[in-house]
Amino acid sequence: MRRVRASVHRLSQQPDWYKAFPGIHWLVLISLTFVLAGTAPAATAPTLSEKEMADAEFIYFDRCSGCHGALRKGATGPNIADEAMLKKPLSELETTIFEGTDAGMPGWGRTGELTTEESALMARYVQIPAPTPPEMGLKAMKATHKLYVPVADRPSKPQHKRDIENYFGVILRDVGQGAIIDGDTKELVSIHETGHAVHIFRASATGRYFYTIGRDGKVTLIDLYEKKPKVVAESRVCLDARSIEVSKYKGPKGDFVDKYALVGCYWPPQMVVLDGQTLEPIKVISTRSSTYDTNEYHPEPRVATIIASHHAPEWVVAIKETGMVWLVDYSDLNNLSMTQIATERFLHDGGFDATGRYLLIAANMRDQMVVVDTKERKFVTKFETGTKPHPGRGANWVDPEYGPVSATTHLGEGMIVVYGSDPEGHPEHAWKVVREEETGGPGLFLKTHPKSDYIWTDATLSKEEGANQQICVFKKADFAAGAHCWQAADHGKVVHFEYNKAGDEVWAAVWDKEGELIIYDDKTLKEKARIKADWLVTPTGKWNVYNTVHDIY
Amino acid sequence: MRRVRASVHRLSQQPDWYKAFPGIHWLVLISLTFVLAGTAPAATAPTLSEKEMADAEFIYFDRCSGCHGALRKGATGPNIADEAMLKKPLSELETTIFEGTDAGMPGWGRTGELTTEESALMARYVQIPAPTPPEMGLKAMKATHKLYVPVADRPSKPQHKRDIENYFGVILRDVGQGAIIDGDTKELVSIHETGHAVHIFRASATGRYFYTIGRDGKVTLIDLYEKKPKVVAESRVCLDARSIEVSKYKGPKGDFVDKYALVGCYWPPQMVVLDGQTLEPIKVISTRSSTYDTNEYHPEPRVATIIASHHAPEWVVAIKETGMVWLVDYSDLNNLSMTQIATERFLHDGGFDATGRYLLIAANMRDQMVVVDTKERKFVTKFETGTKPHPGRGANWVDPEYGPVSATTHLGEGMIVVYGSDPEGHPEHAWKVVREEETGGPGLFLKTHPKSDYIWTDATLSKEEGANQQICVFKKADFAAGAHCWQAADHGKVVHFEYNKAGDEVWAAVWDKEGELIIYDDKTLKEKARIKADWLVTPTGKWNVYNTVHDIY
Repeated sequence: MRRVRASVHRLSQQPDWYKAFPGIHWLVLISLTFVLAGTAPAATAPTLSEKEMADAEFIYFDRCSGCHGALRKGATGPNIADEAMLKKPLSELETTIFEGTDAGMPGWGRTGELTTEESALMARYVQIPAPTPPEMGLKAMKATHKLYVPVADRPSKPQHKRDIENYFGVILRDVGQGAIIDGDTKELVSIHETGHAVHIFRASATGRYFYTIGRDGKVTLIDLYEKKPKVVAESRVCLDARSIEVSKYKGPKGDFVDKYALVGCYWPPQMVVLDGQTLEPIKVISTRSSTYDTNEYHPEPRVATIIASHHAPEWVVAIKETGMVWLVDYSDLNNLSMTQIATERFLHDGGFDATGRYLLIAANMRDQMVVVDTKERKFVTKFETGTKPHPGRGANWVDPEYGPVSATTHLGEGMIVVYGSDPEGHPEHAWKVVREEETGGPGLFLKTHPKSDYIWTDATLSKEEGANQQICVFKKADFAAGAHCWQAADHGKVVHFEYNKAGDEVWAAVWDKEGELIIYDDKTLKEKARIKADWLVTPTGKWNVYNTVHDIY
Repeated sequence: MRRVRASVHRLSQQPDWYKAFPGIHWLVLISLTFVLAGTAPAATAPTLSEKEMADAEFIYFDRCSGCHGALRKGATGPNIADEAMLKKPLSELETTIFEGTDAGMPGWGRTGELTTEESALMARYVQIPAPTPPEMGLKAMKATHKLYVPVADRPSKPQHKRDIENYFGVILRDVGQGAIIDGDTKELVSIHETGHAVHIFRASATGRYFYTIGRDGKVTLIDLYEKKPKVVAESRVCLDARSIEVSKYKGPKGDFVDKYALVGCYWPPQMVVLDGQTLEPIKVISTRSSTYDTNEYHPEPRVATIIASHHAPEWVVAIKETGMVWLVDYSDLNNLSMTQIATERFLHDGGFDATGRYLLIAANMRDQMVVVDTKERKFVTKFETGTKPHPGRGANWVDPEYGPVSATTHLGEGMIVVYGSDPEGHPEHAWKVVREEETGGPGLFLKTHPKSDYIWTDATLSKEEGANQQICVFKKADFAAGAHCWQAADHGKVVHFEYNKAGDEVWAAVWDKEGELIIYDDKTLKEKARIKADWLVTPTGKWNVYNTVHDIY
């Protein structure tokens, strides 16, 4: 008898969490999801063939997920969940995809990346539920690890007379390659297979190696001591990735120079520590967590910028969707310390101020720049700049009126915003906007150098005919005079700047199938050289070894 | 023309992550999951009515998920995913559920908790896919927050003559209540509604408050200064929970005594910081992360033990499924530091050594005890004890031969294992098993007190007729003489011990609908009192305020 009574008693006493979610029954909810996914979309949402689905998934990964997220929850771009997209006519979606938006979305058809048919396919694709990509753990990563040249078999000194510190790593985006160019002679030194849509080159702390990270999560380690730079190791540690950084600390806590590399994944949402010399994957750190403000769980917090601290054995890691900056201590991976700093959403690009103490990073969906003190390990402040700030690593210089300043350009408008960044020497201007000037149009990057008289800006996202082929520079000594602009190319888009080691040359790219690298004299603003070659396919970012090692921008 | 070529080129160049997962196509995989969930189970797996599903979900939550996990991936109990369960005949599953296993699973039918029909229902339930419970973020938590008595309206000193430090909080599991008993007079002081299957009472750092946490995530704050203890605040911050701890630190970094409470959730997998005085939810910290060893993502890492550090403003938090101990610094919640220490899977109960420096915690699926140094913030060692160690907070005493030792009993066998825990004074025995003796059977808890001559053990999980009603004690001065045991009850199961403030009385519970509390003289082992009352329904754990505040065990 007791059994029966106990049972009746308990079942009539359902716990209060049932009451907390009235009308929601887990399994009903789940079943509904299955039903919607398996049946309902056939009636209301488009149906894609297996071939169309595979194509659409790849295009989404290649062109869309960077801004909208694998799960389509939005970040730099808005949330485009299928529920909302189903309410829009397909024709409207097709137009948006093909033509872009004023808010900064590229017109993928207009710029030649997608055909009309592909734009129409993507319009249908975003009306069906987002598939969840698979996980990737250490075992799967290790299966991809290839050590071509063991550390012991590598040369102990450079096998050539070139100046490694003036090497440039240049991305050849659409062919999944990276080129290394001798900055002194402008000669092509080598070309490497670097993973799909390789995103960045990062020089190691010693400057001996280049790390590259592909959008597909493939990491490549290139030894610059070799007569011809050689890929000595490879690993694939994400399904979608953007960032990589090396460990730089040497001090009382140990010598970590080039000991580890950290890869920031977009999917799975995690970061991965690798051996800096062999690329063997060592440790996975999940970024799945709650948003800094509403404290809601986010299933896809992606790693945006990573930058090695100058003050501690730490990586400074920006977690995009949650609006957190994590300081990840690499001095003891088995007893791993980190500090999770609440800032703003959604974090994107950033770099240090001139002293290397403050992280200055864009929360671009909130139109703000965020300041984090990496020495005191805490949030400092945030302030509005313009529509979707996007500084890359940023630009630091000394303004004649305001002292040390930093700046950002914007994805959403053609404006450079300058703000004080010297809280000790010029506290009255610190973290306050002191100057604003128009650029050639919405752009991706700006750059300067301590020895330069200028700040360089692109207008890559401009929709005005020819404007995205313009370069505009501002004179530090007379910033208020406004931009001096010129047409730098007659095809493609001009994007991204990098200085040479000496700080007297600026390199820009013509992002096109028939790509070019334009090299300017930074004093005269005159073109010194223009590299054109059949191997120069869709060049975008480019990094000088010396400037990358020393965070010079 | 370029558009077409670009497109063809790109689509034929699918990235390498396609190759890394040969034969796996995201959407195919996902669709397959939907198909399996929506259609295939109808053919091969059982079908449950909506009513059956609701009943089964609740029984699963109430009896099964604690050991097997909400997603059935296993922890203290094995993985029981539907794929594996579908391969077993229903009759076998029914028998296991009703009769239990030798590995420590209770026989839910045998002990009267489930009927034959319910056991059969659960056998069918585990053959269908596990539903994923919903998330719970800060907004939903705040909607449950109730502040009955603001801090300013609470009394500034006790409104009665009783000794609060000798209050006992007693769990009345099946009625979702907690009783407070005056340890001096043995009188019932108050009974409180505390959430479904309330799991623990935790005294605040000052001893003024009792916090209780229900299995349903309901937190209750009880003010012991009131003439009759009064619930002054409530919150619900999880859908499934086990643990709560208060902030105890006062020192150079600030005064955090009773400032915060931390709730450890089972689902959603997260911990939640609340205001210690009002229970207002403040911050959510996700535990979703990778396993310490294989570095595979785990979707449900649950918070097992939480214990406030004696060395820093930190909570020591055991993350069950990943095998990590997190030291969570509460001194700056917006710039939150933590140390994530790799130990062993799956972490369960634990407590401090006698000095308060070392966390001694069971990794019970690996039959090991783990040692973490909370002062140096690092893993020390781990070692095997017996089948599924389960120490509760543990037991610390001075062995005449081996010096300071600690001990654990086991879920899977009737054995107490004693190990050295004084690495400074007795390094030769530190973290080594020095004694093993049989207890009355597989049990849940052991307990001692610095003033006691004995160690008390239960045999709650024993299947032998009457054995689970036994108490066995060991004499510190003559441990090798073995257990002295006696029959303590003639019904129910005897479980869990707690000392009074003076350390000369031991309280045990008879876990039954007609529950009892038995109070022993710790010197003579004679029964001093036996509390029986109609309100004493299914008493299990009990906590003395003084001993809880001071981590005495």
